[in-house]
Amino acid sequence: MKILVLGGDGYLGWPTALHLSECGHDVAVADNFARRQYDYELGAESLVPIETLQTRVATWREVTGKSIGLYIGDLVDAEFTYRMLAEYQPDAIVHFAEQRAAPYSMIDRKHAVYTQTNNVMGNLNLLYAIADTNPDIHLVKLGTMGEYGTPNIDIEEGWIEIEHKGRKDRVLYPKRPGSFYHLSKVHDSHNIEFACRIWGLRATDLNQGVVYGQQTPETARDERLATRFDYDAVFGTVLNRFVIQSVLGLPLTVYGKGGQTRGMLDIRDTVRCIELACENPAERGEFRVFNQITEWMSIEEIAQTVAKCSPDAVKIEHLENPRVELEEHYYKVTHTGLPELGLVPHLLSDTLIESLFGITKQYAHRVRLEAMRPTVNWRKTSSDATHQ
Amino acid sequence: MKILVLGGDGYLGWPTALHLSECGHDVAVADNFARRQYDYELGAESLVPIETLQTRVATWREVTGKSIGLYIGDLVDAEFTYRMLAEYQPDAIVHFAEQRAAPYSMIDRKHAVYTQTNNVMGNLNLLYAIADTNPDIHLVKLGTMGEYGTPNIDIEEGWIEIEHKGRKDRVLYPKRPGSFYHLSKVHDSHNIEFACRIWGLRATDLNQGVVYGQQTPETARDERLATRFDYDAVFGTVLNRFVIQSVLGLPLTVYGKGGQTRGMLDIRDTVRCIELACENPAERGEFRVFNQITEWMSIEEIAQTVAKCSPDAVKIEHLENPRVELEEHYYKVTHTGLPELGLVPHLLSDTLIESLFGITKQYAHRVRLEAMRPTVNWRKTSSDATHQ
Repeated sequence: MKILVLGGDGYLGWPTALHLSECGHDVAVADNFARRQYDYELGAESLVPIETLQTRVATWREVTGKSIGLYIGDLVDAEFTYRMLAEYQPDAIVHFAEQRAAPYSMIDRKHAVYTQTNNVMGNLNLLYAIADTNPDIHLVKLGTMGEYGTPNIDIEEGWIEIEHKGRKDRVLYPKRPGSFYHLSKVHDSHNIEFACRIWGLRATDLNQGVVYGQQTPETARDERLATRFDYDAVFGTVLNRFVIQSVLGLPLTVYGKGGQTRGMLDIRDTVRCIELACENPAERGEFRVFNQITEWMSIEEIAQTVAKCSPDAVKIEHLENPRVELEEHYYKVTHTGLPELGLVPHLLSDTLIESLFGITKQYAHRVRLEAMRPTVNWRKTSSDATHQ
Repeated sequence: MKILVLGGDGYLGWPTALHLSECGHDVAVADNFARRQYDYELGAESLVPIETLQTRVATWREVTGKSIGLYIGDLVDAEFTYRMLAEYQPDAIVHFAEQRAAPYSMIDRKHAVYTQTNNVMGNLNLLYAIADTNPDIHLVKLGTMGEYGTPNIDIEEGWIEIEHKGRKDRVLYPKRPGSFYHLSKVHDSHNIEFACRIWGLRATDLNQGVVYGQQTPETARDERLATRFDYDAVFGTVLNRFVIQSVLGLPLTVYGKGGQTRGMLDIRDTVRCIELACENPAERGEFRVFNQITEWMSIEEIAQTVAKCSPDAVKIEHLENPRVELEEHYYKVTHTGLPELGLVPHLLSDTLIESLFGITKQYAHRVRLEAMRPTVNWRKTSSDATHQ
């Protein structure tokens, strides 16, 4: 199968490309390197050093003999997007190529507008390019569990059967997300569902939980194949940050009460989920949604798990929550779609001990402590008035 | 009350500004004249001749002695938006300033991207400007009934109580709209709800039905105060088009079976609804939604009503439907919020006879027949492949 991985230079895009290549698929990656640019802007960098995309692709060929195609450009540039699809002629497109950090989208107005423009318009161009080039292409789109927010009812997989005033319908699951980034993915989902409905496109929307881990069997084959590992308060996901804090002997920083509960999964499960989605495509006209998580825990429980598995003694510190979110809430998620296709999850505690602590220790000297304190506040403060 | 009407040069924005001024409010209008530009692009124009905004404002002052402030600029230009709010210091903002035609958004990729960028980013800038300038400002945002699509359950006012697997929640009403334009308003609604939740803004989202009619008591006071009256297949709403067809002795063109049912209201009820919303603001932090319709009918029933009221004999012709939509479906809408605030609706058949046929006859010589045939198709055709 020919699979194009958009955002193939990123934390998950790159390991996904390698995994699909290892599985025997013909793979190409595309990227505009926006993620590397955010690092310059924020003065942050991956804990684990990463090579250029060109070196990564060359290394993969050296190590395995397998080629990965390379497209450098921006989905917001429709000419690039159309030309890439016409040239590569993929059977499936895995779309990771969006600004992915909630705090980044909440820095100020410009970052909110950038995030929604980049994500929504890039995805809209892609939908048109698929419809105009080959509507049979299967779009595998990365969404996020954060789209749902924290409703007081079970979270279903994208759709929900409602009975209301004696009548029934199957409707899109109502969403109430917690940042302009998460909102951009809600907008994407609505646009994609419409494109499936009117043009007969086929799409799988993967509402992914918080991903942890840094290695897959493929990235571990050569250190030049490593993927990034972010620990800063803007791009670092909570679990990776906790592991680094524990290795450095710092307190684990929980925002607010820590009762915020989130779905999670191992990076090795992410790449497997995407393989399963690609190999079992949605039907023409179908907008299929999977909740891509393997377990869920509160932030406090995640901190406790990291503390328990850590070889060293670890403290937990509660910071004032910079986000506006419920700190205690109901949380139950249906996530049967991917296990039914064959997903067998890795467990958090195993991954921590097997791989995460070791990698973190190896690169602990690269940590910049100041990058780990939250600087982006969801609330408006008086100083914001000048930040147009 | 100081009220800023964004999109104040448009079909409804202008009569709304006059009505609010007549009610004794201090009013300013803002516009970037995009609507006039679409006319040049499409080779269409209002059936009723309209004056420039400057002449309109001067005429209103001449006729009534009341001033209306004037801001010329674009909400997508954040500097303009912030400056206008800082200078005018409104208590309420009525936001009509979006590209409003479903067919226009479906012309091709560029028009879809333009519509979503213009509408979503303009509104996002406005939310930030309110939060940074004065979070007490009440945002009265024009949405559309088309956001809901045609669910098989009753359409509630923005929110719905759901019982699911033995638990209950009040959630945003699930939406499944029928064009990239309608989707832009769904995106807006999600962004606004979030801004109310995290910044404590106050907003009323008016999901308006199809508006018909051309005169309000205020626009009727001088012909230089007239608002536009569109009949072309892109910007003309169905009822106005039917009236013109009947006056010209042409068949009324129904798309498909005509079972598509839509909520509607008289232009005089639109301006009254907005007055009621402004004078009864939402609470701080509240995202309040009203369904702004007074009655609903299928397209076939609308055609029959026009035919029945028409002084001349009228035929109904069914065209192949250029849109992708259900042509027979359930439709029942809750719309109690505005009547509870005091709305007393006008009836379609009265308006037709009182005013619409007369106006149309007066300007029938200006009709360009070719503008009334649908040219925008929701489906992809082979010729679209070159339309990036």
